[in-house]
Amino acid sequence: MNYPSKLIENAVNEISRLPGIGKKSALRLALHLLKRDSEQTRNLADSLIALREQTCYCRKCHNISDSGICSICASSRRDASVICVVTDTRDVLAIENTSQYNGLYHVLGGIISPMEGVGPSDLNIDSLIQRVVSAPEDEPVKEVILALSATMEGDTTAFYLQKKLKATHVKISTIARGIPVGGDLEYTDEVTLGRSIVGRLVYE
Amino acid sequence: MNYPSKLIENAVNEISRLPGIGKKSALRLALHLLKRDSEQTRNLADSLIALREQTCYCRKCHNISDSGICSICASSRRDASVICVVTDTRDVLAIENTSQYNGLYHVLGGIISPMEGVGPSDLNIDSLIQRVVSAPEDEPVKEVILALSATMEGDTTAFYLQKKLKATHVKISTIARGIPVGGDLEYTDEVTLGRSIVGRLVYE
Repeated sequence: MNYPSKLIENAVNEISRLPGIGKKSALRLALHLLKRDSEQTRNLADSLIALREQTCYCRKCHNISDSGICSICASSRRDASVICVVTDTRDVLAIENTSQYNGLYHVLGGIISPMEGVGPSDLNIDSLIQRVVSAPEDEPVKEVILALSATMEGDTTAFYLQKKLKATHVKISTIARGIPVGGDLEYTDEVTLGRSIVGRLVYE
Repeated sequence: MNYPSKLIENAVNEISRLPGIGKKSALRLALHLLKRDSEQTRNLADSLIALREQTCYCRKCHNISDSGICSICASSRRDASVICVVTDTRDVLAIENTSQYNGLYHVLGGIISPMEGVGPSDLNIDSLIQRVVSAPEDEPVKEVILALSATMEGDTTAFYLQKKLKATHVKISTIARGIPVGGDLEYTDEVTLGRSIVGRLVYE
């Protein structure tokens, strides 16, 4: 496409490098910014640069944080004996929104995926083992919950983590696979249905 | 949603002010930028600020331009006797991509829409009349093509422009309404089909 100005061409190229935004959407966004106050563009640009250059990661759980230790790890009201292992920050937010979990997190920063060239050494796995092994004796880690996606990559990563954590003798669990709430039994695929029978809950 | 860091919250808020991007997509984009080189974020931010603060508009046709007169208006190979009136820059790009038009453009900068509070005075209409009236005698404007959307707003704007241009005695035309190429007659709505019969082309 021939853009009428080099400036708009540059902006479209940069915007369309973001995931899920093509050249047409990028052009729409660029023209939108041109119509608004220049302050909006400046605020957007400043917030992106501040995000990229000032964001820290929690030394303990690798979640995004404003300081060296994130608010979850620093909180005395959280149960430090349970660690929930997730792929990235979005998963932490998703689980926090359920209000059903009161333990700590460990953000892997990705998932094992040979297709995308992500191996175990690219993830925060060693620090997870370290957290379990070197927990203080009066506050040991009792359980590691694997909250990974129900995909090939998620299962591979879960399998790898189980193998690695075996030596620590910590209890390892995984979030339940089953029929989503509101889901229709008839339309559930066989694998999910099968897992939901194997992992059934016993009424007590 | 509780964000783990003020920086990410700011960035998500600013990104989600863009049209068609909600909080969840904004978070996805912000986390994507965090994973990439900080250079990418800086380039994106710089290109947005440059776009907003340095973009000029063509003095003649109001299209986005690098300098005072855009490359289309400045070109000696374009037919200056025809002006195609469009809503915004995206329409110029769309028509240019067809390679079927060799005249000049006039960008209105919007469309008459009482619902959104856009009236004729908000658009570049006076300068269009001026272009037609004050064209040099050896190079008069012979035709004004209205290339507006086939919506209520587009039709209103076209009607207004026709009334305004009547006194100049310039030839006024509109792009054809009809069945899209590849479209099925059976599934075309009655209004479009009706217009395609009224505006039929005679084989010569």
